[in-house]
Amino acid sequence: MIKAYAALEPGAQLQPFEYDPGPLGDHDVEISIEYCGICHSDLSMLHNAWGITQYPFVPGHEVIGTIAAKGAHVPNLSLGQRVGLGWHSSYCMTCHSCMSGDHNLCIQPEATIVGRHGGFADTVRANAASVVVLPDSLNAQSAGPLFCGGITVFNPLLQFNVPSTAKVAVIGIGGLGHIALQFLRAWGCRVTAFTSSNDKKQEALAMGAHNVLDTRNPGELAAATGQFDLILTTVNVALDWNAYIATLRPKGRLHFLGVPLEPLGINVFPLISGQYSVSGSPVGSPASIETMLQFAAQHQIEPIVEIFHLDQVNDALARLTSGHAKYRVVLCNR
Amino acid sequence: MIKAYAALEPGAQLQPFEYDPGPLGDHDVEISIEYCGICHSDLSMLHNAWGITQYPFVPGHEVIGTIAAKGAHVPNLSLGQRVGLGWHSSYCMTCHSCMSGDHNLCIQPEATIVGRHGGFADTVRANAASVVVLPDSLNAQSAGPLFCGGITVFNPLLQFNVPSTAKVAVIGIGGLGHIALQFLRAWGCRVTAFTSSNDKKQEALAMGAHNVLDTRNPGELAAATGQFDLILTTVNVALDWNAYIATLRPKGRLHFLGVPLEPLGINVFPLISGQYSVSGSPVGSPASIETMLQFAAQHQIEPIVEIFHLDQVNDALARLTSGHAKYRVVLCNR
Repeated sequence: MIKAYAALEPGAQLQPFEYDPGPLGDHDVEISIEYCGICHSDLSMLHNAWGITQYPFVPGHEVIGTIAAKGAHVPNLSLGQRVGLGWHSSYCMTCHSCMSGDHNLCIQPEATIVGRHGGFADTVRANAASVVVLPDSLNAQSAGPLFCGGITVFNPLLQFNVPSTAKVAVIGIGGLGHIALQFLRAWGCRVTAFTSSNDKKQEALAMGAHNVLDTRNPGELAAATGQFDLILTTVNVALDWNAYIATLRPKGRLHFLGVPLEPLGINVFPLISGQYSVSGSPVGSPASIETMLQFAAQHQIEPIVEIFHLDQVNDALARLTSGHAKYRVVLCNR
Repeated sequence: MIKAYAALEPGAQLQPFEYDPGPLGDHDVEISIEYCGICHSDLSMLHNAWGITQYPFVPGHEVIGTIAAKGAHVPNLSLGQRVGLGWHSSYCMTCHSCMSGDHNLCIQPEATIVGRHGGFADTVRANAASVVVLPDSLNAQSAGPLFCGGITVFNPLLQFNVPSTAKVAVIGIGGLGHIALQFLRAWGCRVTAFTSSNDKKQEALAMGAHNVLDTRNPGELAAATGQFDLILTTVNVALDWNAYIATLRPKGRLHFLGVPLEPLGINVFPLISGQYSVSGSPVGSPASIETMLQFAAQHQIEPIVEIFHLDQVNDALARLTSGHAKYRVVLCNR
């Protein structure tokens, strides 16, 4: 039996919960969990905000642990290896996206916490293809958030082959944004942080931002007209997107990683005049995750985390909900 | 004196109008006009729809003619050469976009019909850098529309390096769309035309579309889910853009060439899930126009035009306004 924490209904406190995962599939592994990050999408799923949650619901999709068991056909992983598991726990492996290396765009993927139980537990299972080995030099305690938040901000750099000469802005310096600043600085870009929080300014500079602008100050936004090749937005609230598009250089891109629920209301005329793009992307493929981990190890990039023990899971969720966590909350099961 | 046709106030009938262009600049040429296409933006400017029209207003920015005079510093053009002039009649030549070859994104460009007089005339002037030689094998009578409508639809193929294996849809089979179908077919793409006009179906197939879908039929749109790598939209009316985004393949792009005045209302969640882009672009640079002309000559691509003599200019404008022109109206001054 796997020992986990589950919510029995939308928004409920988590409570101890056991389930029998059945026999281990030939292509699956069982991960003995050491750490699990908490992502905003765990909260969204807890509250059934997307209408796809099944209860009992065990959150958790930023898992770090060791391979405790493996199926008969798992060539890529060894018992005892330290690995990570993110948003996806399996892929169809045969659709055009999967066959092109874009497993993250699989037409029938399995998500770690959708219709199955996630990483707020002592153990979790996944298809071996979705599990990536953690480089030895990365800190296991803080590495979990790389597997969802980290790859979400890193993937567009790969997808769009962002040049190191680009001027890039990040909107929202939280769980995703604080990792984005570090990756972008190491990538060689000129980095601007947009935040509504004055007390994050010094920290954003320390993480790699060359300058910090206040999202609540229209004057600072207006002064940035025509500045950025790329804007990564990590927030889930509605902003004046046309004003941010005005801060793009010709051919610039406004790229969504966070999910505002309101439609964007983009004006077409400026989009055409500046040859701008507005786009979005989800997490990355396992190959992209592996590339990201190597880059993080090379540049000593590390999410900044607050640690709670797994049995304090409800306190940890409350901390994330408060909006004051700096910058990612991680559960420890050691 | 240059003999032209001008509107004296918004929406007025055009009437004969003469103006003195002054001394010819060192970097300028004077073009003796043979043909001039009529673009929807001539109509928008005639009615001051964008609030930037100055009267008397001489429309016309799809000019074909011969070099009648040239300034002291015009190394690229010879007297008597047949050339074309499009939306832009000059560039700053020094901004980052100009210096990068993206003159069409110049921060201070001069437009042929904005604050100066255009091609509904016997003569027009322009900076030599904005004037492109017409290949001998192209038909002068029909080539004018390539210099605005044509380059508008061709430029995204260059900008995004669209692979010939792409599946591409064109929304709106009019002045721009009918050229887009021809370019895309020659480019090697699988081509779909979206039109609201049943009587254009056979013609769209003849122009290069592999299939034609009815924009008024939600069933045909729904059946196209997940089909297209690229959609070029040439219409200036509001459509259900989220429904068109649903017809994109993963990593697909919805690209605006026409200008709907209503904000787009794009939903973010699908944008992220499919890694889609929504974008726009204006006309192309002179280098891109030259590349387009060579491609058009190689593949015998030719706008389909209705010819009116220059002194029938008001009839020609009425024909375009009727929406029944097939597919571009051209004024003749021979």
